[in-house]
Amino acid sequence: MTKNNITIETPRSLCPISLALDMFGDKWTLIILRDLMLGKSRYKEMQDSPEKIPTNILASRLKKLEQQGFIKREPYQEKPKRYRYVLKQKGRDMIPVLKQVTLWSLKYSPDCWRPPERFWRLEP
Amino acid sequence: MTKNNITIETPRSLCPISLALDMFGDKWTLIILRDLMLGKSRYKEMQDSPEKIPTNILASRLKKLEQQGFIKREPYQEKPKRYRYVLKQKGRDMIPVLKQVTLWSLKYSPDCWRPPERFWRLEP
Repeated sequence: MTKNNITIETPRSLCPISLALDMFGDKWTLIILRDLMLGKSRYKEMQDSPEKIPTNILASRLKKLEQQGFIKREPYQEKPKRYRYVLKQKGRDMIPVLKQVTLWSLKYSPDCWRPPERFWRLEP
Repeated sequence: MTKNNITIETPRSLCPISLALDMFGDKWTLIILRDLMLGKSRYKEMQDSPEKIPTNILASRLKKLEQQGFIKREPYQEKPKRYRYVLKQKGRDMIPVLKQVTLWSLKYSPDCWRPPERFWRLEP
């Protein structure tokens, strides 16, 4: 099904967990949201993150996040035109999810990096 | 790298979000954990869930969850031998993650199913 040029896949079910995973159930989307939450906004900055996201995946995930209303794309430079990516409320409302995931990892992957203090201070 | 017959992939980074997604960053693992949290325990019960998980994916995810210590497999019948799957503490500690994902979906997918009351009462 398409609506305003956005492809909408038939959901597997209307379970809230299942619907959410239809949107961000993959290995990369929450990493992009993490970067945006911690202040990155440009394509190049996200590409330089330590996980080394492949450029085709970064491009497709940013497009999907924009189509689904998690983020918006804003021009910050003309000639050549360049864009930055900014969280919308739907993306900021993922902050509590990422905090819980982080708490879980801190318990079960004790060697993992500690998030910066500003991460814990983030609010939706 | 292998350790005790468990294949350990090199993590993309030691970021807690990234490490967590190495374990459950896919479209199915949290659905299996949901089923176990809500009282399902047998292969057939999980196979019958509305999302219609393909049997090869269900088998491989259950095996991975067991290897990584989220769940344990217990025999509940001899001749023929049958097993049930039970959450261990590492899996139960995912309850707050699933609750936050559910709250987020309830806000952004208003037509989604309401979880049963016992879901909100679950504690790690």
